[in-house]
Amino acid sequence: MSKTIKKIGVLTSGGDSPGMNAAIRSVVRTCAFHDVECVGIYRGYQGMIEGDFKEMGPRSVNNIINKGGTILKSARSKEFMTEEGRKKAYNHLKAEGVDALVVIGGDGSFTGGLVFNKEYDFPVMGIPGTIDNDIYGTTHTLGYDTALNTVVEVIDKIRDTASSHNRLFFVEVMGRDAGHIALNAGIGAGAEEILIPEEDLGLDRLLESLRKSKLSGKSSSIVVIAEGDKIGKNVFELKDYVEENMPEYDVRVSVLGHMQRGGAPSCFDRVLASRLGVKAVESILEGKSNYMVGLMNDKVELTPLEQAIKGNSQIDMELLRVSDIMTT
Amino acid sequence: MSKTIKKIGVLTSGGDSPGMNAAIRSVVRTCAFHDVECVGIYRGYQGMIEGDFKEMGPRSVNNIINKGGTILKSARSKEFMTEEGRKKAYNHLKAEGVDALVVIGGDGSFTGGLVFNKEYDFPVMGIPGTIDNDIYGTTHTLGYDTALNTVVEVIDKIRDTASSHNRLFFVEVMGRDAGHIALNAGIGAGAEEILIPEEDLGLDRLLESLRKSKLSGKSSSIVVIAEGDKIGKNVFELKDYVEENMPEYDVRVSVLGHMQRGGAPSCFDRVLASRLGVKAVESILEGKSNYMVGLMNDKVELTPLEQAIKGNSQIDMELLRVSDIMTT
Amino acid sequence: MSKTIKKIGVLTSGGDSPGMNAAIRSVVRTCAFHDVECVGIYRGYQGMIEGDFKEMGPRSVNNIINKGGTILKSARSKEFMTEEGRKKAYNHLKAEGVDALVVIGGDGSFTGGLVFNKEYDFPVMGIPGTIDNDIYGTTHTLGYDTALNTVVEVIDKIRDTASSHNRLFFVEVMGRDAGHIALNAGIGAGAEEILIPEEDLGLDRLLESLRKSKLSGKSSSIVVIAEGDKIGKNVFELKDYVEENMPEYDVRVSVLGHMQRGGAPSCFDRVLASRLGVKAVESILEGKSNYMVGLMNDKVELTPLEQAIKGNSQIDMELLRVSDIMTT
Amino acid sequence: MSKTIKKIGVLTSGGDSPGMNAAIRSVVRTCAFHDVECVGIYRGYQGMIEGDFKEMGPRSVNNIINKGGTILKSARSKEFMTEEGRKKAYNHLKAEGVDALVVIGGDGSFTGGLVFNKEYDFPVMGIPGTIDNDIYGTTHTLGYDTALNTVVEVIDKIRDTASSHNRLFFVEVMGRDAGHIALNAGIGAGAEEILIPEEDLGLDRLLESLRKSKLSGKSSSIVVIAEGDKIGKNVFELKDYVEENMPEYDVRVSVLGHMQRGGAPSCFDRVLASRLGVKAVESILEGKSNYMVGLMNDKVELTPLEQAIKGNSQIDMELLRVSDIMTT
Repeated sequence: MSKTIKKIGVLTSGGDSPGMNAAIRSVVRTCAFHDVECVGIYRGYQGMIEGDFKEMGPRSVNNIINKGGTILKSARSKEFMTEEGRKKAYNHLKAEGVDALVVIGGDGSFTGGLVFNKEYDFPVMGIPGTIDNDIYGTTHTLGYDTALNTVVEVIDKIRDTASSHNRLFFVEVMGRDAGHIALNAGIGAGAEEILIPEEDLGLDRLLESLRKSKLSGKSSSIVVIAEGDKIGKNVFELKDYVEENMPEYDVRVSVLGHMQRGGAPSCFDRVLASRLGVKAVESILEGKSNYMVGLMNDKVELTPLEQAIKGNSQIDMELLRVSDIMTT
Repeated sequence: MSKTIKKIGVLTSGGDSPGMNAAIRSVVRTCAFHDVECVGIYRGYQGMIEGDFKEMGPRSVNNIINKGGTILKSARSKEFMTEEGRKKAYNHLKAEGVDALVVIGGDGSFTGGLVFNKEYDFPVMGIPGTIDNDIYGTTHTLGYDTALNTVVEVIDKIRDTASSHNRLFFVEVMGRDAGHIALNAGIGAGAEEILIPEEDLGLDRLLESLRKSKLSGKSSSIVVIAEGDKIGKNVFELKDYVEENMPEYDVRVSVLGHMQRGGAPSCFDRVLASRLGVKAVESILEGKSNYMVGLMNDKVELTPLEQAIKGNSQIDMELLRVSDIMTT
Repeated sequence: MSKTIKKIGVLTSGGDSPGMNAAIRSVVRTCAFHDVECVGIYRGYQGMIEGDFKEMGPRSVNNIINKGGTILKSARSKEFMTEEGRKKAYNHLKAEGVDALVVIGGDGSFTGGLVFNKEYDFPVMGIPGTIDNDIYGTTHTLGYDTALNTVVEVIDKIRDTASSHNRLFFVEVMGRDAGHIALNAGIGAGAEEILIPEEDLGLDRLLESLRKSKLSGKSSSIVVIAEGDKIGKNVFELKDYVEENMPEYDVRVSVLGHMQRGGAPSCFDRVLASRLGVKAVESILEGKSNYMVGLMNDKVELTPLEQAIKGNSQIDMELLRVSDIMTT
Repeated sequence: MSKTIKKIGVLTSGGDSPGMNAAIRSVVRTCAFHDVECVGIYRGYQGMIEGDFKEMGPRSVNNIINKGGTILKSARSKEFMTEEGRKKAYNHLKAEGVDALVVIGGDGSFTGGLVFNKEYDFPVMGIPGTIDNDIYGTTHTLGYDTALNTVVEVIDKIRDTASSHNRLFFVEVMGRDAGHIALNAGIGAGAEEILIPEEDLGLDRLLESLRKSKLSGKSSSIVVIAEGDKIGKNVFELKDYVEENMPEYDVRVSVLGHMQRGGAPSCFDRVLASRLGVKAVESILEGKSNYMVGLMNDKVELTPLEQAIKGNSQIDMELLRVSDIMTT
């Protein structure tokens, strides 16, 4: 039997993503709606260790639904990986009267939450916040949709220049382990080729694909490359390789980097954040623990945190085919 | 038994929506991929009646994936509602050698296609293109996601002014029969109240809700209203009503109008358009007819056109609850 | 001889405009740079009357340079038009130890400041903040450049739809007394005709111009109309008039409204705000009073407030010619 | 005495910039307005050498005012640096009946035009199109204003992340010889430090400045660096240097690259392009040659091409002071 929950803590952890603020707002207001107190914890687990807390009411989260980043700040905490660190954190939560925790972040953050739960039997609920969309149990992580829009808007600009000069561009996007951003933004931006961690295209096929593109009469080409692509060369090495083998090309490289994490969230991410925040708080109030709230088949569902961490978010192989057809 | 398809015609019909060009591009390139000819038909059914056709190859659709509107133009055709009109259209298609039709549009466009199919046993495949998201058989119509982003971006700007002056704004968005845009963009923009065709909130509750919002310490309020809201007053009548009953308010009205239909499509709409175009063409090549391709549970599925037209796209009632909680 | 200035008050007044926050930030930080205290006054002159003040240091204005609206809020104050109201305001300023005032606003706000200065010999410095660009003594008011970008972006979207349907759109933009926005955004958006308060085009020429546009083979037309256009009909009356006289047209109307005041300021407005804030504070510290800081020939210059109010910002007549040529 | 001009050629050359299409449109329509023929020359001087020409009328430039890049494409031509290349180009122009040339580009392009003029007494008029704003005789080159907006929007996104993690970011922007973009976008984005080619800040002052920023309580810092900054280290070397000397910082680098050249032009750039195109064509028709049209004190003026090339566009030293004060 779960004891009565009177106060819920909320934190953001790991890389920030657009929609985190909207999720914080939702958690805070859902608490208020159910007459439960809410405490913001700054700088993720590190702030929990240091007792960096702040009471939050519905007016604390005015006008943040459309802001990128996280007003609670985020940080990675090595200290929380130690038993001692977690003990400090627990003591601060107890002193503050916090009964349960909502963790907004990626799988690293969820792992931390799970360990903490095991040690102190402390209720933890996860909200997937990362642009990489690499979490099992949700078709969309918070920030992913926004990041896709950011990437296609930037590549649209690069294409202006590429078309004007009949040039070849290599654009590196985020995604160390998962090609979701590269694959979707690549299709959305009309890329001629897309390199992702899930598929080893091979260097030969890249060259072949570029030759085909040239023959087909295209005046410019854009190749979208995930950070963690399988080819095993970084984007600058790829440039050198292609220029050596296709001297007719003058390859330009653009590494999009951190801008992909920022910006006002898309409507989708704002609505998703609002829905996930409601479900996370209400699940806690129903006595649940150790789940992640996520979107499955357009419905908000619970997945055990353990599965969310271990499972893999599969890339949609149909999209690879679509991508191939689109470059006809 | 379906005969071999050698040439496919594609048209856009009804109100335009972002992603139509991306869908045209996908249809054209999927045809090329399968060595089938493709013909663009200008100005919807009217152009079909007039034989306003153009051969399209993969290079005809370069650099349109990110453009709003439709390069094939759109129009409403009264003549196509007559038997005579449809006969002319059929004769033009035959003369041109067109074997099947992809219709990108809303339910009015699909109805036209269905009638045409019945009369001439002509294969028709529908792609849902409308910002209203009011079509059964797909969780997302082309352009809907983009329109949501357009609306929240505009309301974000209006909120700057609303907050600076402690004012109340009524913002009218598209949606004569369906409140999808109002409900989702309302949540996304943090609206204090949302009026939709599906729910009769009643004037009293609107006033009560505005009073609650004022009492809660909010310095400004935004009410999002679908064109076809149930209250039965237009947005200017609502303004008068509220100002009479709450003289402390100086209400401003903003009718967003046609800008909601334009703009570069979001990444989501570009990818969706690409997927739907592939499925539409390949379904025709498999001998299918009279279906709409749509997104169900994140997968591309077929729905009989007849159902797509008659069915209702239900609003997600959970979102109404989320909206209420968010205005705490 | 001016006495030593130890504390400066800053307020925003009248309609808000993008860049006001950047100007507040600049005033606050320039005060800190010169070791002068700074006090924010909320809700314009009304807050001055009510003593609604707040000490501001350099960290109070973190992360606001890119925010629309004004963190100090704005309001119109009838009470400040009375001697009694101004007396209250003066007493509050004295009690707070404020020695001089920076007023960010339009000519109404400057008139208030000038009256106040006359009565109490209180140093006042104006920063022109309004999207209308209708103030003498500066080629650009704060927010004008941003508003132009907002308007052309929206008309770009409307053009997507206009082109797709071969339609005529009337777009009403802000500008009751000055056509700067209509003229510049009209040229920027490629409008076929532009109606402004400064020029009486006459209804006949509007019709003639639309006929010419149709003859020239244009498939769609956009007419940009300033609120205060000289033709003496509002935009809906104009629509009726044109539809009566040119039945081939189905005219759509879009009134852009308050969204024009909001949004993140353009780089130009941010830099201008930063420059004007520095000059306003440093001019006060040099003992100057009753000036407006403005941009003249790309340099920051002072204009006596009295001139700024009475003078007229002339429309650039060359632009009317450019507009005509562009619609060839 | 200048002979009668019957046909004008227009080309874009060098790096593309937003507004080039708007300038092409203006040149084409001004020609039509004055009943002069107009010929588009593809791929700059290289297309002139190859006779890659196309007749252009007012409808050829529909709907391009808001498009980035250049529909005439651009290229650098080594062949045009040879006498033989220029002879071929001249022969093509004569064969086509072209009487004068409008060159849209930077100083390299103008130099080419000047040499060509000297050899063949061929009328040449320049329009400054480059994002770098490094041309004498105009306060604004085409594309510069748009690039500033692009840069501040991207840095706004990076700041979301920087603020959420209390991090230091180095952002490299374009500007090999001129710091206009870095200086203005740096102020506009609220950068803590700005490194430009015109000023040798020195490594010590950079460290000092970062220390001051940290002490002042700022939670994150952004340093904007022009490609050609004087410090003589590239942005990655700078990162290493700072991390060695301030181990408390985890520096992230973002190189914005080619996206700065693309995107829909700002309203300012569209209007400027329209004005410059009119003046360029009308100056040719008045018999003028070897001038650049530019913006001086908000008026369109002519500057001899020779001066435009040799002169230096000075950075506004007042802005350096403003920047210093803003980082208080």
